[in-house]
Amino acid sequence: MSRNEEKILLSHGNGGRIMHELITNLFFMHFGNRFLKQQSDSVILPSDSDEIAFTTDSFVIDPLFFPGGDIGKLAVCGTVNDLSVSGAEPLFISVSFIIEEGFPMKDLVTIVKSLADEAKKAGVLIVTGDTKVVNKGKCDKLFINTSGIGRINKAKRLAGKIRSIRPGDLILINGPIGEHGMAVMNARESFNFKTPVKSDCACLNHLIREVLDHTTSVKFMRDPTRGGVATVLNELTGTKKFGISIDEPDLPVGKGVRAMCELLGFDPLYVANEGKVVIVAAEKECGRILEIMKKNELGKQSAVIGKVVSDHPGKVVLKTETGGKRIIDSLTGDPLPRIC
Amino acid sequence: MSRNEEKILLSHGNGGRIMHELITNLFFMHFGNRFLKQQSDSVILPSDSDEIAFTTDSFVIDPLFFPGGDIGKLAVCGTVNDLSVSGAEPLFISVSFIIEEGFPMKDLVTIVKSLADEAKKAGVLIVTGDTKVVNKGKCDKLFINTSGIGRINKAKRLAGKIRSIRPGDLILINGPIGEHGMAVMNARESFNFKTPVKSDCACLNHLIREVLDHTTSVKFMRDPTRGGVATVLNELTGTKKFGISIDEPDLPVGKGVRAMCELLGFDPLYVANEGKVVIVAAEKECGRILEIMKKNELGKQSAVIGKVVSDHPGKVVLKTETGGKRIIDSLTGDPLPRIC
Repeated sequence: MSRNEEKILLSHGNGGRIMHELITNLFFMHFGNRFLKQQSDSVILPSDSDEIAFTTDSFVIDPLFFPGGDIGKLAVCGTVNDLSVSGAEPLFISVSFIIEEGFPMKDLVTIVKSLADEAKKAGVLIVTGDTKVVNKGKCDKLFINTSGIGRINKAKRLAGKIRSIRPGDLILINGPIGEHGMAVMNARESFNFKTPVKSDCACLNHLIREVLDHTTSVKFMRDPTRGGVATVLNELTGTKKFGISIDEPDLPVGKGVRAMCELLGFDPLYVANEGKVVIVAAEKECGRILEIMKKNELGKQSAVIGKVVSDHPGKVVLKTETGGKRIIDSLTGDPLPRIC
Repeated sequence: MSRNEEKILLSHGNGGRIMHELITNLFFMHFGNRFLKQQSDSVILPSDSDEIAFTTDSFVIDPLFFPGGDIGKLAVCGTVNDLSVSGAEPLFISVSFIIEEGFPMKDLVTIVKSLADEAKKAGVLIVTGDTKVVNKGKCDKLFINTSGIGRINKAKRLAGKIRSIRPGDLILINGPIGEHGMAVMNARESFNFKTPVKSDCACLNHLIREVLDHTTSVKFMRDPTRGGVATVLNELTGTKKFGISIDEPDLPVGKGVRAMCELLGFDPLYVANEGKVVIVAAEKECGRILEIMKKNELGKQSAVIGKVVSDHPGKVVLKTETGGKRIIDSLTGDPLPRIC
C-alpha cells in the first residue's frame, strides 16, 4: 500500500514492532532531538532553576484542519502559551496521541510535521510521548495531549503579582479577538462567509519574553482561550475588591469576526483565541509595553482595551459604543464546543 | 437533579462557570494540595535537583472499571511506574480528562476518588490538569492523560547503565505475569472464568526505591505493560551483542491467568502487566535484590526468570518446560487493544 493510502491500524498502538516503526519513522524523524533519543518511558532532562512551570492540555478540536492551523500546531501553541503567561520560558513538551483506527496516515504525517515546525519556531523540544489507537468509532479521528515544562526566572515570576493589581492599572491585548473560534466554526459548518477568518493560533513565548525582559510592571497575563476575553477578566475579578471596565470602541475586532458574530449571534468577547494574551500592568509603563508588543509580528494591533476600577468590585462592565453599560458575566452555556 | 443521576454536559468543558464548579467541587476537593491551589494555566513547582524525569501516558482502557482497579488508579500507576523505572522519585503529576457528554457524574466521582487515593498512597501530588468534554458518540466514555515529573538522584540514575549489561547478568521480576491484561479481557468479554483474575495495577515507586537505595548493581528496569515481558526483553536485546534466555518453569504465572491464556490462546509473556517491573542486575547482588523485593507487599512472589547470555545475540529465547527452545519475538498483531 502506498503511503498515501496507508491507514492507522490497532497494531500501531500495541507496543509492538509496528508501533515501534511508527515512532521511529514518523515521530522521531520530525521531533528528533538528543533527549528524545533516550527512548525510555520517561526522559531525563536538565533542570537549572529552582522552580519549574508545569502544564497540560488535551486537544479535541473539530475539524482537525482549519484556516490558520491544525490540531498539531494548536497543541504546541496551547501548551507553550500556558507556560509563557505564567512567566516561564517553555523548554520541553510531551506529545500523546489518541488515534482512531483507520485514520489516514497522510493526515497524521501532516499534523506531526506541523507540530514539529511549530515547536521549532517556538524553540521548545518535544522530549517524550505516547501513542494509543482505539477501535473505529471509539474516538473522533484524533486527540492530542501536550504537557510542558518551563524554566522560571524568579525575578520574572508572575505568580503573586496579581495581588498588587490596583484601580488605575490598564488591560492590554496583542490584537483582534475571536479569530480562532470563528475560523473553526466557519471551517466546521462550511458557512463560506465572504470575508475569510483565519485562526490567530500562534506561540506567544517570544512576544511575552520581550515584554517581561524589558519592563517591570506586568501584574498578570493570561491567554484568553475557551470562554474568551470575558472569561479571563471574570476569573481575574472573581471575589476581588476591584472591578474591570472595558470600552467597546477600543476592542480590536476584525471585519470577518464582526460579521460572523453579528450574523450568528455571538459576542466576540466570549469567542476563543489561540494567539492572544491579556495583560494587566501599571498604567505608567503601558506605553512602553504597547511599543514592545507592536514591534513583534504577533502584536502589531496591540491595544489598551480597559482598566481596573474601584467601582463595581468583582464585576466586568462593558461601556458600549452607544454609551450604555452592560455587565459581562462568565460563560454558562457552550455555544462552541470542541474549538481546542 | 440528584448527584446520582447527574450527567456530564458539554458545558462542563467550556471554560465557564459550570466547568469551574466541576473543577472546584470535584477535582480540587479530592486532589487538593498547595500547588494545585495556584489555579493557573501552568503550575510553579520547586526543582531541587540538576535533572528531572518527565513522562506522559494516555489511558483509553475499556472497561473503565475492572477487578483490581479502574482507569483512575491505572492512570496514576502507569505514570508513577514510568518515572520510577528510570530511577526517578515521582513527585508531581498532571491529569487531563476527555469526557463524553452524558457520562454519569457518579462514575466520574468514583474515578476521581480512586485517582486521588492512589496518588496519596504513592506520595505524588496532582498539581495541574485539564478537562475537555466532547459530544456524545465522539469518544468512548472517558480517556485520561497523566504526565509526570520526578526528581533524579544522580547517584541512582539508571540511564546509561544499560551499556554495562553483560552475559551472566540476571533478569528478575516482582511477581506473576499477565494479570492486568487477562483481568481486563475477562471484565470486557464477561467470560466469567471460575478462577478470578485480578489486575496487578499498583504503584511500584516504593518497591523500586527500596531496591535502588540498598543495592548498586541494577542496570536496567522497565515496566512490562503493553506487549508484556516479551516486548520489554526484545527492546532490551534489540541490536545488542547479547541475547536473553528465559526459563519457562521459572516464569511466575498464576492459575487463573494460565487457565485463561490456555483457553483463549494467549501467551502470558505478551500479556500486559501494570504492577510489575523487569530488572536486569549483576548476578552477585541478585540474592540481595530478591530479598528486598520479597519484603515489599508488591514483591512477595519475586523471582529470577532468566539471564543475559552471549549465545543468540539480539534474540530472546525461551527454554520450555519440555526442554525445547523457542524464539520469543516482539509483538506484531494486537490481540488485546485498549488494555491501558
